[in-house]
Amino acid sequence: MSEQAMRGVYSILVTPYDEQYRVDGESLQRLVEFNVQAGVHGLGVALGSEIVALSEVERRQVTRVAVEQARGRVPVVINTGGPVAELAVLYSRMAADDGADALMVRPPTFLPAGPDQVIAYFKAISDAVRIPIFIQETPETPVSGGLARRIAESCPNVRYIKVESLPPPYQVGQAVAACGDLLGVFGGAGGSFFVEELRRGAIGTMPSCSQPEAFVAVWDAYQRGDDRTAQEAMYRWILPVNRLATQAPAAFYHVHKEILRQRGIIRTALVRGPVAPLDPMTQRELEQVIEELSCFKAATRRGGG
Amino acid sequence: MSEQAMRGVYSILVTPYDEQYRVDGESLQRLVEFNVQAGVHGLGVALGSEIVALSEVERRQVTRVAVEQARGRVPVVINTGGPVAELAVLYSRMAADDGADALMVRPPTFLPAGPDQVIAYFKAISDAVRIPIFIQETPETPVSGGLARRIAESCPNVRYIKVESLPPPYQVGQAVAACGDLLGVFGGAGGSFFVEELRRGAIGTMPSCSQPEAFVAVWDAYQRGDDRTAQEAMYRWILPVNRLATQAPAAFYHVHKEILRQRGIIRTALVRGPVAPLDPMTQRELEQVIEELSCFKAATRRGGG
Amino acid sequence: MSEQAMRGVYSILVTPYDEQYRVDGESLQRLVEFNVQAGVHGLGVALGSEIVALSEVERRQVTRVAVEQARGRVPVVINTGGPVAELAVLYSRMAADDGADALMVRPPTFLPAGPDQVIAYFKAISDAVRIPIFIQETPETPVSGGLARRIAESCPNVRYIKVESLPPPYQVGQAVAACGDLLGVFGGAGGSFFVEELRRGAIGTMPSCSQPEAFVAVWDAYQRGDDRTAQEAMYRWILPVNRLATQAPAAFYHVHKEILRQRGIIRTALVRGPVAPLDPMTQRELEQVIEELSCFKAATRRGGG
Amino acid sequence: MSEQAMRGVYSILVTPYDEQYRVDGESLQRLVEFNVQAGVHGLGVALGSEIVALSEVERRQVTRVAVEQARGRVPVVINTGGPVAELAVLYSRMAADDGADALMVRPPTFLPAGPDQVIAYFKAISDAVRIPIFIQETPETPVSGGLARRIAESCPNVRYIKVESLPPPYQVGQAVAACGDLLGVFGGAGGSFFVEELRRGAIGTMPSCSQPEAFVAVWDAYQRGDDRTAQEAMYRWILPVNRLATQAPAAFYHVHKEILRQRGIIRTALVRGPVAPLDPMTQRELEQVIEELSCFKAATRRGGG
Repeated sequence: MSEQAMRGVYSILVTPYDEQYRVDGESLQRLVEFNVQAGVHGLGVALGSEIVALSEVERRQVTRVAVEQARGRVPVVINTGGPVAELAVLYSRMAADDGADALMVRPPTFLPAGPDQVIAYFKAISDAVRIPIFIQETPETPVSGGLARRIAESCPNVRYIKVESLPPPYQVGQAVAACGDLLGVFGGAGGSFFVEELRRGAIGTMPSCSQPEAFVAVWDAYQRGDDRTAQEAMYRWILPVNRLATQAPAAFYHVHKEILRQRGIIRTALVRGPVAPLDPMTQRELEQVIEELSCFKAATRRGGG
Repeated sequence: MSEQAMRGVYSILVTPYDEQYRVDGESLQRLVEFNVQAGVHGLGVALGSEIVALSEVERRQVTRVAVEQARGRVPVVINTGGPVAELAVLYSRMAADDGADALMVRPPTFLPAGPDQVIAYFKAISDAVRIPIFIQETPETPVSGGLARRIAESCPNVRYIKVESLPPPYQVGQAVAACGDLLGVFGGAGGSFFVEELRRGAIGTMPSCSQPEAFVAVWDAYQRGDDRTAQEAMYRWILPVNRLATQAPAAFYHVHKEILRQRGIIRTALVRGPVAPLDPMTQRELEQVIEELSCFKAATRRGGG
Repeated sequence: MSEQAMRGVYSILVTPYDEQYRVDGESLQRLVEFNVQAGVHGLGVALGSEIVALSEVERRQVTRVAVEQARGRVPVVINTGGPVAELAVLYSRMAADDGADALMVRPPTFLPAGPDQVIAYFKAISDAVRIPIFIQETPETPVSGGLARRIAESCPNVRYIKVESLPPPYQVGQAVAACGDLLGVFGGAGGSFFVEELRRGAIGTMPSCSQPEAFVAVWDAYQRGDDRTAQEAMYRWILPVNRLATQAPAAFYHVHKEILRQRGIIRTALVRGPVAPLDPMTQRELEQVIEELSCFKAATRRGGG
Repeated sequence: MSEQAMRGVYSILVTPYDEQYRVDGESLQRLVEFNVQAGVHGLGVALGSEIVALSEVERRQVTRVAVEQARGRVPVVINTGGPVAELAVLYSRMAADDGADALMVRPPTFLPAGPDQVIAYFKAISDAVRIPIFIQETPETPVSGGLARRIAESCPNVRYIKVESLPPPYQVGQAVAACGDLLGVFGGAGGSFFVEELRRGAIGTMPSCSQPEAFVAVWDAYQRGDDRTAQEAMYRWILPVNRLATQAPAAFYHVHKEILRQRGIIRTALVRGPVAPLDPMTQRELEQVIEELSCFKAATRRGGG
């Protein structure tokens, strides 16, 4: 698969658990299939997958299930960043061995790192694998356009940057202007500003995986030049869910898992933590949104046809 | 060993690396021996050990070397906190299996956790092991006195609290007043306010391991009621090093490892990262401090006699 | 005017400037009139008014223009918080002398303040005036429900709390449950979760002042039990603007002022700083939103009829 | 007075209050005199003066008392930064009118400001006055060496930079290397790393004003090449006080004011807030430190001789 081809909607998979909070591989298989059938262009395992809540063994398990179920139909990106280069290299090699098509890595977080250290960190990872790497830049680990260029110039495998600094559309625009010639720019923020990011030159986004047909519909409309339909799909399908996902603590995980559970994709909506459940009012609002989005089912059929 | 007896100076071991940044078990053995000979009352593997820079396999390796070399002469405390309970329980069981005498755990960090979730997290860990547990409270994961009481009352194995919130002496005093009847209170902050914390009811501290004889001397003086000698030892031996350890990025790790290297205990002063080396001026100041503290050697002989 | 009656939509006025960045009193008069005519239930001068960018003389000027133009038709709330009680009392007395109907005050920010200090701060202000006071609780100065109760019980004039901690609907629900019997709860966050906050017991909100008819329409629909129309108005009129207002640095001030300028209410859209202008793409998106919201004009006529 | 001559110990004056928390001009006069007699090279009114706790009228009062009592014997630097340029220019003009010899200004804080905005902000201030300006760079408003150069090149009156980013010695060294040819570099952090900063090229520091003779002694020793005496004075006189000043909330203000009160310079040790008093144990430790530093009195006599 040509890595230059990576663009579009890359769903970040949730990690489904069984009633004992163990990774539920069968649900994960269904989740991969559901997203591939919905027409997404790639899959990811990252923070939205509770990746920091997984042991090293479980990381591998999730990676392998995703890769095996994807069967090369879409690329699978694994987040393999670590607090230090030694761990990031270890995780990156593991992911590459397990069949990942690409990696996503944020700058080191354990000790203060200047530009030279950040470059050395990415170089260590780039030298250890033969697959493309996304720089993951975040509010806590910002990467200026200039630094992104230097990383790209030093690291042949670094080909993309996923921008999560705030506010999202502005930061995506800045990144495209600063290093869009060297790196493909993906947006973040759960896809809430997907159209705005596309207008600024983003080539993809990485939303959650509970309504892939909606994101694919936005992408398709935008690609054929129909900005208005794209924006309407945002307001009709995506914002009601994404707003719910920000309106209570940990709601992001509860909301997307509960939608997937009610859609019959995963078996439980459990989240590791421990974490408080959704408050009753938000739960009620979620039910209402799911009810109103029953068009999902039709969309699923269409997307999977 | 009676866990109620845990008090005094608990050295947090650095993790020594060889030239390829692999864990250097022999240096670690020497480091344990050096600290035991110096008279410390316990050993710890924690953030100051770069524990977040170690893979799960390396965590076990470090734990086992520390436990085996300590040979029961002093207790070994392993930091087994995790972003979620599932990982903290996994690490805690591993550490207990590997012979740890106690655990140190901070509240969960992945998702927002209210008091009920924090208590459930500690209860899961407490139920999984049969050794005492330190609550590690930090600026990022503060634990009020009231919450500490509730944790202690729900979790039989939670017996201690290590206070790292700032400013240290004040927070230690608050913790002793709020839950000193239920939990033994240890101070943090690299031991820079050791005497002030003892005056407020702390029963121990967890400094770095590069000059254990100095901390033992402070402890001994304070225990025999000689506050003045204790304080003088702080200014004479400890503050010059601790101030160096805060005056440049990552200096904490560089300074303590370099002292240990020059004292012949560990083979390299390498730190995982990548991390910039000490700037030349700080390096020069470190040399001067080491020179002035050559009394260390005498102290070592005395402490180890 | 009975202060218990304070509920509904309280528009936070922007501070209009002339071309030399001086406060433009005439524009401010028009802005007050525009909002009163649109049916808002109150007016406010607060952070959204760039109040921290005003000298003490200018604060008084803005307060007096707002009060005089409102002519008692709706109450005017002035933010008179200060880093210490002495300044908050000074500003509060000035505002009361200048005719303010109510005050809004956040906890002190200069030095660390425990519950007793926060209560003493509010008591000093409450004792200095005879008008109702809103506690302003923010992410930087959180006020737990228990502390809000203690403040209310000690300070007869403290009658309301405006909740700005995140995420908004959740925090509003928590505040209503904890102290809704003692304090009227207003929502924050620019009104982006107005309906969700009303569902959780909020009695009002404090959005910006660029589209008061839209917020009044939401309020009216909700009051007559028409949750669906209220929510549709949110998506149709409010979210497109509020999302723009968060998508670039300082966009909140640029967007609302530019809308008001294009609606003919204020003369310039200048913002003190200095601050970078909106980037061209966001400017273009703003033009498009204004175009699509040309129903604003009809609404204005209707609202002001 | 030639502004290039600004170097050495610049005491930041506390603001003394009477029992009603009003500015106590007589105590302030004595405080200025005490510091001038002790041989300091300049005086400052800044954050350590609780400047944000003063009304605009009180700022002017404090400035005028300081300037009048200094009588040109040493320069007086006034912190005139503001959240926006308009306020900073207003405060700067007021201070210049009131006789300030120099200004200290940190970057704007109200709205996000890129390099161009920060430069425009400093240019507005520089154009409004004819006295030298210190850039105040802080952890919340960092100024890179490159940006400092650009400010200096655009603003003829900007001649100095006071570095407060952490860790202090390292940041001072970075600033000297990056812009020491254009700007005189002063250290911050209460002078706790005064000698380390001098070694890295700082030309002065701005500590609190409770023990000016001690800082002058360090400066004098260092100037005559006696690094050892300078460092010993740090450990003997300054660190015991500075450590106390960090060991409890708001202790910085309590400690320096209480020392000055006990030395007979100011009438009360009151601090605006409200703020909790020192806890009894810290109060006791403060008494002990004052007792041990009774050499202060001799030093005062010598300094004032």
